[in-house]
Amino acid sequence: MIDFQGVLVAINEAANNEKEKGKSADYIPELAKVDLNNFGIHLIDIQQKNFSAGNSDERFSIQSISKVLSLSMALSLIGENVWERVDVEPSGDPFNHLSLLELENGIPRNPLINPGAIVIADILVSQLKNPKEDFLAFVRNIANDDTIAYDLDVAKSEKRTGFRNFAAANLLKSYGNLNNDVDVVLDFYFHQCSLSMSCAQLTSTFFLFINHGKCKRNNIFLTKPQVKRINALMLTCGFYDESGEFAFEVGLPGKSGVGGGIVALLPNKFCVATWSPGLNKKGNSKLGMLALEKLTTETELSIF
Amino acid sequence: MIDFQGVLVAINEAANNEKEKGKSADYIPELAKVDLNNFGIHLIDIQQKNFSAGNSDERFSIQSISKVLSLSMALSLIGENVWERVDVEPSGDPFNHLSLLELENGIPRNPLINPGAIVIADILVSQLKNPKEDFLAFVRNIANDDTIAYDLDVAKSEKRTGFRNFAAANLLKSYGNLNNDVDVVLDFYFHQCSLSMSCAQLTSTFFLFINHGKCKRNNIFLTKPQVKRINALMLTCGFYDESGEFAFEVGLPGKSGVGGGIVALLPNKFCVATWSPGLNKKGNSKLGMLALEKLTTETELSIF
Amino acid sequence: MIDFQGVLVAINEAANNEKEKGKSADYIPELAKVDLNNFGIHLIDIQQKNFSAGNSDERFSIQSISKVLSLSMALSLIGENVWERVDVEPSGDPFNHLSLLELENGIPRNPLINPGAIVIADILVSQLKNPKEDFLAFVRNIANDDTIAYDLDVAKSEKRTGFRNFAAANLLKSYGNLNNDVDVVLDFYFHQCSLSMSCAQLTSTFFLFINHGKCKRNNIFLTKPQVKRINALMLTCGFYDESGEFAFEVGLPGKSGVGGGIVALLPNKFCVATWSPGLNKKGNSKLGMLALEKLTTETELSIF
Amino acid sequence: MIDFQGVLVAINEAANNEKEKGKSADYIPELAKVDLNNFGIHLIDIQQKNFSAGNSDERFSIQSISKVLSLSMALSLIGENVWERVDVEPSGDPFNHLSLLELENGIPRNPLINPGAIVIADILVSQLKNPKEDFLAFVRNIANDDTIAYDLDVAKSEKRTGFRNFAAANLLKSYGNLNNDVDVVLDFYFHQCSLSMSCAQLTSTFFLFINHGKCKRNNIFLTKPQVKRINALMLTCGFYDESGEFAFEVGLPGKSGVGGGIVALLPNKFCVATWSPGLNKKGNSKLGMLALEKLTTETELSIF
Repeated sequence: MIDFQGVLVAINEAANNEKEKGKSADYIPELAKVDLNNFGIHLIDIQQKNFSAGNSDERFSIQSISKVLSLSMALSLIGENVWERVDVEPSGDPFNHLSLLELENGIPRNPLINPGAIVIADILVSQLKNPKEDFLAFVRNIANDDTIAYDLDVAKSEKRTGFRNFAAANLLKSYGNLNNDVDVVLDFYFHQCSLSMSCAQLTSTFFLFINHGKCKRNNIFLTKPQVKRINALMLTCGFYDESGEFAFEVGLPGKSGVGGGIVALLPNKFCVATWSPGLNKKGNSKLGMLALEKLTTETELSIF
Repeated sequence: MIDFQGVLVAINEAANNEKEKGKSADYIPELAKVDLNNFGIHLIDIQQKNFSAGNSDERFSIQSISKVLSLSMALSLIGENVWERVDVEPSGDPFNHLSLLELENGIPRNPLINPGAIVIADILVSQLKNPKEDFLAFVRNIANDDTIAYDLDVAKSEKRTGFRNFAAANLLKSYGNLNNDVDVVLDFYFHQCSLSMSCAQLTSTFFLFINHGKCKRNNIFLTKPQVKRINALMLTCGFYDESGEFAFEVGLPGKSGVGGGIVALLPNKFCVATWSPGLNKKGNSKLGMLALEKLTTETELSIF
Repeated sequence: MIDFQGVLVAINEAANNEKEKGKSADYIPELAKVDLNNFGIHLIDIQQKNFSAGNSDERFSIQSISKVLSLSMALSLIGENVWERVDVEPSGDPFNHLSLLELENGIPRNPLINPGAIVIADILVSQLKNPKEDFLAFVRNIANDDTIAYDLDVAKSEKRTGFRNFAAANLLKSYGNLNNDVDVVLDFYFHQCSLSMSCAQLTSTFFLFINHGKCKRNNIFLTKPQVKRINALMLTCGFYDESGEFAFEVGLPGKSGVGGGIVALLPNKFCVATWSPGLNKKGNSKLGMLALEKLTTETELSIF
Repeated sequence: MIDFQGVLVAINEAANNEKEKGKSADYIPELAKVDLNNFGIHLIDIQQKNFSAGNSDERFSIQSISKVLSLSMALSLIGENVWERVDVEPSGDPFNHLSLLELENGIPRNPLINPGAIVIADILVSQLKNPKEDFLAFVRNIANDDTIAYDLDVAKSEKRTGFRNFAAANLLKSYGNLNNDVDVVLDFYFHQCSLSMSCAQLTSTFFLFINHGKCKRNNIFLTKPQVKRINALMLTCGFYDESGEFAFEVGLPGKSGVGGGIVALLPNKFCVATWSPGLNKKGNSKLGMLALEKLTTETELSIF
């Protein structure tokens, strides 16, 4: 039996001792305010036992981690039709480059980079009566937690400064791969990204990806093949142009966000979330990456 | 002495006999309506003698040709400071690609492609009290023609469908190379592009580029070095990714627009404008290109 | 208990009934000669039980599959120093594009695309006394099979026509990322790619990747972390620009070759190899891809 | 009447006083040896009057300037068929990038960048009985100077280190745009580039480009349209990714070489050559660029 609690405590200590804590995401003003000394980690195993260390209950902006959740909802609504509008290949490019979009006629490389996630947002806006409310309800449902909420200040902050996302959405529109108004889609998208959760809540939310599509209360939200494919996408595309590095060093499917959160998981075994707002050069949480490397090295658990 | 009138008449006849007249620019709905059979040509020589053939007095949307005029006004206002925000190299890319913008950190390749012209529009919005009115006054002034006006239907049509320009402007904004609001800059830009002129009016407007910066009434609007440099830019960058071809086949500085207009000139000698709405694959007027090739071949006049 | 034999038989039948069998790799003349109707599959489980169907004992050119073997030998010789000369990110590009190499100053994206494999070949040429002989001995050793050999006709054929590889090697040399002569490195590389094996032999050779680095006779050739990382690389980069698709549809680490072979594996469980010379548009075996999709769908075994 | 001699003397003085003289082309070892303090300039007018200052009679390696000469010979041999294998557009890229070659299926952007010049070399190798001897005879002929010769040490030096050119030639070969052996074509190409001339000799050689195709002794080597087009190419493509800048600042067709030479010309008026081995960041002679800027500014002579 692995002593998860012991490992998390050691990871937390190592994180606190680390001197270089990375830089916060200054292009979203609201995120730039968060204290770089924060570190939290939470792990839930397949028996729903919980382990944690550090600020694992402090909420932060999950940002791009929400792309896995919006993709999940889109798949649950229109199934494989999603793949007519977005591909499943790693981009090999930083998260904000539009070049590939032009070379490939408006079909984003995958749903976990910004242009791809904006297409998914467009699908949800088309499918849902009250997109923002319905998506929040979906997330609360799979997490079994009604306290999860949008951070409206963050959403507003990003709306004012998210010029690259406006560029991406307009480019998609010019290629006919956006059915709704740019402003409507991005309003939804910025809310989606502003979801605020703690590490503990993140592991509750992502529990269904280690449990064949069943959430903590055993309700089924995704089919087994859907879960398998989302996990595959997290592994190949979850960390921008550091995805290969993460698969190589950590060896788990996962997703990071510029708010400093990372969630990662081993199917049938455990789901783990870390949070530390300082980012490395590739836009992923610096301490979070180190923490997960330590976790899989110490436990020798990975998909490979 | 060259018989310009004879050459123009022959060119007009050849244009009317040409069967393949190209395709209209269908991405701007208002432009798609124009009859493909139109052809007009007008030439003014340095002594201000005028020659014409075909529909040389019918007005059309000058579109990208206006980029030379906005650049001229920006140079007259802030001089060489313009070059801190836009480069002077050919792009080697179709007129709408944003890729280079990303590779080069938000500095457009030159002021005659869309992203570069949007930066120039931003400069004018910053410098002018009433940008749209003041720019129109500038154009009327250098042309000595107060009937020149915006085509508001075209401006509106482009605003509704110009997603690539919204993408470019937002991308520029994300790189800090746009000081004003995207909507304000593009409103100005779409008006600027909607300027409506005939071939005759275009040659009046561009007369100063063959006359060392002095317009038809001898007022000075640009310095000699400024005129030299704008002419150089027209030669290397005036025809999107067909600029080399145009220099090679025609051998004159010039600028085309998706409305089907082309203006070209030989310093100290003549300025010529053609109009025919059918475009070739590279987005330049098909009959206009042929007409100018014929003009320089028959007259053996070119800068080379 | 899973009835592997039953599944393989069904897969073989489905493959034989498939009408569209893809196209052979015509750019290597020797490979173009092989009959498209060939199909073979072989699976070895962690207890070294063997299952097979179709032409599983016919030898073919393993081509790019050999890149995993040369990488393994390089890692066994100089360890993590390998990563100073080649990265671990998916390329997001077809297997032969040199563009990224230029953008990234001569550091190939990963060791499983051609430029990366050429760097690995350069390492082996530097490290080994008799590179071709020593590498063959390494492969025979981990496979426990002394009948494995190069196909000299294929090696010669590729040498005469492998202009893109000569281009890549010279480009690497121009960036200082190739220490030996281009001709010497490519002579080794073309031999390495010409290794001839059957599906059965491939699974013997790759057995150590499901067995923590121990080959069938229990000798240790790679450390656990090395095996984990090679498996991660196969998952993210093993199928050119179809790597995401393979992870998504099949969900196993693996590697394909233009000879029509594919090897894939589930750590601790099984290793499988297929062969069918007809390729799909992305350069991977058409029937092989379908076979492995069927295998993981029917058995519900994958890393996700 | 312009006092050319006075202007050249002033330019020479300014060049000698300039402190930052650029860097020599260290990637060709033989070129790296030349003293950075060298500066020479020579001008010939249409009446064949000669003016000079500085080291205008010292010979240097003309390198890429030779591309204009090989193109001229190819045009004189097979006419417009040349354009089936190479385009006429500016590349918008540094001189050594292969990326565009891949995007555009092996058709180089223009004959004045390396891959384009290698295609031209291939044409000459196919057309000429003794390529190296025949090309040298052609150059001596148009220059009316039998002392012009290859610098065999430079040719050898480049052969040993010209890996990017080997990469380009192999890439062209892989696209079917090279008919002869890579080694044979590059052997010719390296000799062509090693042509050694003084500024005075360069202006003699290029005299035909200001004289409608007639060389100094009045023999005709090119047609008027051919001269016009080569001049157009020099203007749009003669200075790598600084071509726009040169047209903008200087306003003359011209061609530079990494040996530090530049030739520029005004049709019907004059041809000028400068030499100074220190290069700027874009690979063009630093002092030469300044000299030509000064020349056109002082004399107010340019094509615009």
